[in-house]
Amino acid sequence: MPVHQQDFLGALSAVTIFGPGLIGGSLGLALQKRLPDCDLRFWTRASSVEKTAAVFPSALVTHDACKAVEGASLIVFCCPVEAMEKPAREMANAVDPGAVITDAGSVKAAVVRMMEPLFGNRFVGAHPMAGSEQSGVQFANDSLYEGATCILTPTETTSKEALAQVNDFWSLAGCRTLQMSPEHHDRLVARSSHLPHALASALVNTVAETTPEALEVTGSGFRDTTRIAAGPESMWAGIFLENRREVLAALGELHQKIDDFAGFLERGDYEAMEKFLSRAREVRKDLE
Amino acid sequence: MPVHQQDFLGALSAVTIFGPGLIGGSLGLALQKRLPDCDLRFWTRASSVEKTAAVFPSALVTHDACKAVEGASLIVFCCPVEAMEKPAREMANAVDPGAVITDAGSVKAAVVRMMEPLFGNRFVGAHPMAGSEQSGVQFANDSLYEGATCILTPTETTSKEALAQVNDFWSLAGCRTLQMSPEHHDRLVARSSHLPHALASALVNTVAETTPEALEVTGSGFRDTTRIAAGPESMWAGIFLENRREVLAALGELHQKIDDFAGFLERGDYEAMEKFLSRAREVRKDLE
Repeated sequence: MPVHQQDFLGALSAVTIFGPGLIGGSLGLALQKRLPDCDLRFWTRASSVEKTAAVFPSALVTHDACKAVEGASLIVFCCPVEAMEKPAREMANAVDPGAVITDAGSVKAAVVRMMEPLFGNRFVGAHPMAGSEQSGVQFANDSLYEGATCILTPTETTSKEALAQVNDFWSLAGCRTLQMSPEHHDRLVARSSHLPHALASALVNTVAETTPEALEVTGSGFRDTTRIAAGPESMWAGIFLENRREVLAALGELHQKIDDFAGFLERGDYEAMEKFLSRAREVRKDLE
Repeated sequence: MPVHQQDFLGALSAVTIFGPGLIGGSLGLALQKRLPDCDLRFWTRASSVEKTAAVFPSALVTHDACKAVEGASLIVFCCPVEAMEKPAREMANAVDPGAVITDAGSVKAAVVRMMEPLFGNRFVGAHPMAGSEQSGVQFANDSLYEGATCILTPTETTSKEALAQVNDFWSLAGCRTLQMSPEHHDRLVARSSHLPHALASALVNTVAETTPEALEVTGSGFRDTTRIAAGPESMWAGIFLENRREVLAALGELHQKIDDFAGFLERGDYEAMEKFLSRAREVRKDLE
């Protein structure tokens, strides 16, 4: 029998967040606001305990993974994807058998493959599409998730009850949720998120290396197009490598489009160029 | 003897703007505010006379190029680059011999090559790096040029006096000016402005054609990176083709960087990937 939102969220007495940076810290602030009676616990690297405690003075902040999950009925992994496995293995046997586990990672197939053997049908992969070029718990804000899309990636293994609870949880944080398979998620975000990031970084490096003087004459176009290149490199290197097959495919597709564009220039084909730009404008203007 | 800013701008009794869209209209509004006693005249396509007159009810708005420049001591071409030649030829013999002529075009070598035979040492090429993805005089605003960089592109032909006057004029509009040759300008903006636009459009078209469902799961990263793809296609097709040699070179440079990136993915080289992203982040964070 599915549990009602009020029942599950109302009964949520403790939530543990693993890896509170911008993403996990903002989730913590949103929970403090919306579930003021719920206990918050944070697991973080030893070196970040103090920084996290400064933002959440009344919460438990620890580097002990088992202690962090004691009594928690919901556990959220917000660390970079490649940093999830270690604490997940450490605490797997300490988790309350009724707890649900979710995450906020930017790739899903690899995460689900690693988590399901540990948590079985109580794990529900999630990717809240929120963030900024900033990183660190000190930039956390309680409205980061407002209106963001959160993709849930249940599998045949996932319990329907756990899915409903995790869905309610991310909705409470402010997200609009939708569901798809982990593999389809990775295929889509390779194009909507990873490809733009790779391009922004490649564009900055191209200009910096070939014509650094051009950086003195940039307008809002260059700044908008490259904003995400200011994001944290270690997190992004992890994302790209975890999703390498799809990112490589997406780069190949983009290559083809750039070649088409270069062809219009070489042939001086104004009409084809205008049509290419017009198609992009039509699609883009429907996005906001 | 160089004319002082006050002398030239103070004596400026009439300014003519050719092609008032977002760029020319915003310039007109800035002048109304800062030189309230100066007469404004606009030359525009016959079909746009009414629209322009609605924004500038007290100005002369005409499709007659000779009438538009009568008595004007400063003339600014704000039409798309490929649309400048026709009205420039029509009015060249009607211009006051003491008038200075400038423009706001996004490419400079082609414009200077066309204008100098018509106006000699009184023409000073300019590129105010301001704009948005919107177009049309109805979006004009009097602060578009505030803090924008304006590149002036004098040649050996250009009169020092005309250069000083045009410099004062764009400064009055709110710009920070700098000077370089038309060819160097085209080389730099191919990287800082034209390349990002081509990429943004190619990215939108790639996703729209290969995985349109990915457009349903975009975050702020995709939206920032592709914002300029919503710009007017006919203006941009003209810019790309006028600067085709440099844009092609820039696309080739970017191709190389994307190949480097793809190589890191293929080899699973986390360190090289992180270094690539870190370099981009360092450069990017210094831009704002």
